[in-house]
Amino acid sequence: MGKGGMSQGEKEDGEEVNMAAWLLGVNTLKIQPFELPSLGPYDVLVRMKAVGICGSDVHYLKTLRCADFVVKEPMVIGHECAGVIEKVGSEVKTLVPGDRVALEPGISCWRCDHCKGGRYNLCPEMKFFATPPVHGSLANQVVHPADLCFKLPDNVSLEEGAMCEPLSVGVHACRRANIGPETNVLIMGAGPIGLVTMLGARAFGAPRIVIVDVDDYRLSVAKEIGADNIVKVSTNLQDIAEEVEKIQKAMGTGIDVSFDCAGFNKTMSTALSATRAGGKVCLVGMGHHEMTVPLTPAAAREVDVVGVFRYKNTWPLCLEFLRSGKIDVKPLITHRFGFSQKEVEEAFETSAGGGTAIKVMFNL
Amino acid sequence: MGKGGMSQGEKEDGEEVNMAAWLLGVNTLKIQPFELPSLGPYDVLVRMKAVGICGSDVHYLKTLRCADFVVKEPMVIGHECAGVIEKVGSEVKTLVPGDRVALEPGISCWRCDHCKGGRYNLCPEMKFFATPPVHGSLANQVVHPADLCFKLPDNVSLEEGAMCEPLSVGVHACRRANIGPETNVLIMGAGPIGLVTMLGARAFGAPRIVIVDVDDYRLSVAKEIGADNIVKVSTNLQDIAEEVEKIQKAMGTGIDVSFDCAGFNKTMSTALSATRAGGKVCLVGMGHHEMTVPLTPAAAREVDVVGVFRYKNTWPLCLEFLRSGKIDVKPLITHRFGFSQKEVEEAFETSAGGGTAIKVMFNL
Amino acid sequence: MGKGGMSQGEKEDGEEVNMAAWLLGVNTLKIQPFELPSLGPYDVLVRMKAVGICGSDVHYLKTLRCADFVVKEPMVIGHECAGVIEKVGSEVKTLVPGDRVALEPGISCWRCDHCKGGRYNLCPEMKFFATPPVHGSLANQVVHPADLCFKLPDNVSLEEGAMCEPLSVGVHACRRANIGPETNVLIMGAGPIGLVTMLGARAFGAPRIVIVDVDDYRLSVAKEIGADNIVKVSTNLQDIAEEVEKIQKAMGTGIDVSFDCAGFNKTMSTALSATRAGGKVCLVGMGHHEMTVPLTPAAAREVDVVGVFRYKNTWPLCLEFLRSGKIDVKPLITHRFGFSQKEVEEAFETSAGGGTAIKVMFNL
Amino acid sequence: MGKGGMSQGEKEDGEEVNMAAWLLGVNTLKIQPFELPSLGPYDVLVRMKAVGICGSDVHYLKTLRCADFVVKEPMVIGHECAGVIEKVGSEVKTLVPGDRVALEPGISCWRCDHCKGGRYNLCPEMKFFATPPVHGSLANQVVHPADLCFKLPDNVSLEEGAMCEPLSVGVHACRRANIGPETNVLIMGAGPIGLVTMLGARAFGAPRIVIVDVDDYRLSVAKEIGADNIVKVSTNLQDIAEEVEKIQKAMGTGIDVSFDCAGFNKTMSTALSATRAGGKVCLVGMGHHEMTVPLTPAAAREVDVVGVFRYKNTWPLCLEFLRSGKIDVKPLITHRFGFSQKEVEEAFETSAGGGTAIKVMFNL
Repeated sequence: MGKGGMSQGEKEDGEEVNMAAWLLGVNTLKIQPFELPSLGPYDVLVRMKAVGICGSDVHYLKTLRCADFVVKEPMVIGHECAGVIEKVGSEVKTLVPGDRVALEPGISCWRCDHCKGGRYNLCPEMKFFATPPVHGSLANQVVHPADLCFKLPDNVSLEEGAMCEPLSVGVHACRRANIGPETNVLIMGAGPIGLVTMLGARAFGAPRIVIVDVDDYRLSVAKEIGADNIVKVSTNLQDIAEEVEKIQKAMGTGIDVSFDCAGFNKTMSTALSATRAGGKVCLVGMGHHEMTVPLTPAAAREVDVVGVFRYKNTWPLCLEFLRSGKIDVKPLITHRFGFSQKEVEEAFETSAGGGTAIKVMFNL
Repeated sequence: MGKGGMSQGEKEDGEEVNMAAWLLGVNTLKIQPFELPSLGPYDVLVRMKAVGICGSDVHYLKTLRCADFVVKEPMVIGHECAGVIEKVGSEVKTLVPGDRVALEPGISCWRCDHCKGGRYNLCPEMKFFATPPVHGSLANQVVHPADLCFKLPDNVSLEEGAMCEPLSVGVHACRRANIGPETNVLIMGAGPIGLVTMLGARAFGAPRIVIVDVDDYRLSVAKEIGADNIVKVSTNLQDIAEEVEKIQKAMGTGIDVSFDCAGFNKTMSTALSATRAGGKVCLVGMGHHEMTVPLTPAAAREVDVVGVFRYKNTWPLCLEFLRSGKIDVKPLITHRFGFSQKEVEEAFETSAGGGTAIKVMFNL
Repeated sequence: MGKGGMSQGEKEDGEEVNMAAWLLGVNTLKIQPFELPSLGPYDVLVRMKAVGICGSDVHYLKTLRCADFVVKEPMVIGHECAGVIEKVGSEVKTLVPGDRVALEPGISCWRCDHCKGGRYNLCPEMKFFATPPVHGSLANQVVHPADLCFKLPDNVSLEEGAMCEPLSVGVHACRRANIGPETNVLIMGAGPIGLVTMLGARAFGAPRIVIVDVDDYRLSVAKEIGADNIVKVSTNLQDIAEEVEKIQKAMGTGIDVSFDCAGFNKTMSTALSATRAGGKVCLVGMGHHEMTVPLTPAAAREVDVVGVFRYKNTWPLCLEFLRSGKIDVKPLITHRFGFSQKEVEEAFETSAGGGTAIKVMFNL
Repeated sequence: MGKGGMSQGEKEDGEEVNMAAWLLGVNTLKIQPFELPSLGPYDVLVRMKAVGICGSDVHYLKTLRCADFVVKEPMVIGHECAGVIEKVGSEVKTLVPGDRVALEPGISCWRCDHCKGGRYNLCPEMKFFATPPVHGSLANQVVHPADLCFKLPDNVSLEEGAMCEPLSVGVHACRRANIGPETNVLIMGAGPIGLVTMLGARAFGAPRIVIVDVDDYRLSVAKEIGADNIVKVSTNLQDIAEEVEKIQKAMGTGIDVSFDCAGFNKTMSTALSATRAGGKVCLVGMGHHEMTVPLTPAAAREVDVVGVFRYKNTWPLCLEFLRSGKIDVKPLITHRFGFSQKEVEEAFETSAGGGTAIKVMFNL
């Protein structure tokens, strides 16, 4: 029997049975066997070692949907992951069994205009871990293309490897907003996305970062891991003008780029108003669908709004940031669980519960 | 007495008195003497020959305000203009009396970060014709920096020269949205701004342009001067989904860039929804201040929103477009008036009245 | 028997034998059977209809090498081609038998950083028609990935489709040099590459193009198909300063971008010296390996040098240029041949002979 | 008498006589009175406190020329400087007497296309300290536009302020080559320019920097102030292939950008060959005029060559780098002198002598 007694099985012939966490219905996750596809010539078989829980995983568990995606069939969950190579396909030259790797979860088609034009994250045929109907990676083993498995530097742990996925969201946002050593950055929202965006902005060289939230605990974490200044705000729309002034004062100089990592009318209105003429607002959070915001006066100051969808080509950079110490993601991992039925349930409850949980991680 | 009997005066010593159209109060424009500043070493004295009426001029006349600007003192109106050089300052080497020139109306400070960084249109100290408290150019003569006076090619008329100003809005929008021979363009709104943006997009090489409006006459003009396809829409918010489909069908291929030249909730919502993943929406029109639009789903497809404020470095390109025939602005000039008290009043009424008036032009 | 009696065979069972032009040794081309690989799920089988001869084909024929590539085994030649779909793989949804298509000749790996980053033309594992050891397309039939076969618009002929390949070189150069309606362009060399670059620059909106060569005939062709001005020069290095002056005078305004489509010390020196401060020189021709040129004074005026290797994502744009009439490649096709042993030999002699031959085309 | 007995004078009426170091002929520098222009409304009067010696100053002293500039009349030398505001013009609002400032030495015209387009460093009418016929700043006092005087943060010394000038060369080169956290950088030449470019590249986030020189002492300095790896090379052209291999091994990954901070055939050839496909070579050093280099194979791998001329808008960023400690220029200041006739002569000899002198600084 595998470790933990519940997450690994054995076939009659002694061969290991691959087990995975299946989303079977609202609030129903079960560890069950998961048959893997055969290993293609450019694929690798990876033994999962660390898998984090993302907000989207929790959404699927609670509602069977996230954005426009709907879970219609049982689906293996999980997509923030790292593991160890067990087997490589016949044409794989870059990896060998034993290599520790972080996995980029999306497989794009490489035949459409987006893929060929360098924006594969927009590929309409993307097959992405745990985005229905594609299975995820909270499993003992997965098969994945070798070119989406990135070898970890010696000083980067498997858990840190799994953190490349949420960190990639921040890194991609920073790239799209063109952050550099001349960009003073405002971040609206100190949740997990706000925090990884802050870490990314710092690593891209942002000289000054102010972060804004309604919650004291989150702000204290943000301050601890690197914000230059924090501003506590209300949820009251009437306070925007006053808060913008407070935020601009906390920055002390022009705000070049604002990231809205919450995505509500108030956060976006604040971001649009606080940013200097000629700056940018990058909308990362997905709170509201339709938004009521002062878009016209922002546009008339040439404040552009930049959108982000997932990421592309971010793993090598994330691993370099982790290797060099420019980014430390360890403080974000607040809770750890093993891969048993009971622990999987507890882990998701912890992640959903908010409180002091930032990132909940499975160690398999 | 000057030509027209009312627009030019004479001082006692026989010297010409410079006359201008002064905005004195709501709906009150009077032709009165306008004393010019002395000619600096880098300035020129220009005899105005063609001045167009802009929507902002009409706004000022009707309300004494436009956007955040308020007219508090009597102000000479007008800023779309061309004329003939009468005198040049001691250091001016590029122009001589007799040269026909189009005037760029804004004088920036060249000391701030925006000016030095190549975005002088965002200069907070900009002095711009007929933006209070700066006087405009609907006058017999104005004094202006030589480097903002652009010599007309032989085959470009003074009226066409005056059209460089509205055309610059379209050209700047096209530059900000990076229009080229691979950009299929949607234009929401077939008013003057929509039309100059369409002309600009065509000149920048857009292979296919679809233009949308609620008005049949405007659409027929757009079609005549170059739209590949037109779509008539309603003002009803309920129709957006259906109209987006109609518009996408009228394009026949992905919409790379949409210009919202109206700036209402409906036009912006349509633009955001109709544009392909990875495309851009450029907000040019200024209908609403606060907007209620599906910003999040657009951002999640990496559809960026680009703003525009006036223009920069557009006159040489506009003149090249007019010289080469890539743009023909003559069909936009629908009404002409002389520079007498009565005609000034009639001209503004015509411009404000809408109907078939696109551009109303004074010939001085 | 197939048409022409020599280029198509028949197997004993009546099935057609696919014939191709094989490069067997220096100056030795033979039409022989060419067995095709099996059709993959994303592949198509194309019956070739038009194949052009490229300078590199002639190089291989004369020397068995081109740049760093060496022909060590018999190889089917040809890579500028268009044809008709005969069969499609099981997963192909964009094409059906009977579709007329132009073929992009290079298959990249989609696993390396260049491919993923949007510069697949730099892929080190590129498999490219008639670049050893990969077979080319001067054959009755080829198997090719469907996503590299681009459907021809109704008004674009198969010969024009084949011209997309050389035209792509010009279009890619124009993209890399960022040509637009504000870029005055100098082209050094009026050979086939100079001419397609000129056509590209015009289609991208270049307002003024001056082209330079040592040959009167070539200059006359350039003038006929669209150059604004031509300048005849010598091959004497001593004449550079004087010729630069002549060229700048022929332009009449600043030269924003120069394309060196010859690639010799003299042409590159002329380009570097003639271009305005802040402009670009794009090196397209490959005459010399090591170059002796005034690089320092050019760099000190921030004149950048931009390189090009083949192209990427150019077929859709080339076809749009041909469809819209913005580019007419028909005048470049000066000679046509059938696909028999004798005609293949004659065709290559014609192409190698220079004279009035610009593009030599096979009709299969 | 002023401090030092020779560098400050007194007029008969007790008013201070402004003294400056005049270049009077080859190897002839004399401290003599320097009459200042009157203070314009946007100007400030600055008491110089720190002035560094640049290679170009030494060139002028030894040969009366540098690049295309020739000294024909006596000229005050010096342009790397910082001081304290003594008086401000009537319109100056950003500075007050007593403010410590670093001076950007070039005054551009703000009327030409380069200035208006955001590349004022290319202005053909630039008036630049100690570039004939414009006087420099090795003087007790100078008059300069306020917008070119940048207030020093409290923790930045006047000497560090003067270092903003050479540092600006490195910062501008890094901007032009688009250095960021994904750019592995090679630097050819560990002289003053190589070192400031290295400091700049590090501050822009370059993860790995290899620096190359022929001199052990220079390499040891480079290593000490931050190079990840150093490679010693010969001046022998035959060694290029072998040295490229050594350099690439020292990098351990692809070289994204190479800076040639020497500007010789060998350094440029090495840079062009060592850089990865799709990378850039930035030519900063000005050793040779005409260069013999393998430009074609580099261009065929789309390795672009980027030039630099001085800098633009670099002072605020340099000061931020110094304030935050991302750059420490203090180790570069190796020698200090007072402002007396004897010390001026000694200082220039020291700077010209090479040896361990990196930056020689005057304290006035």
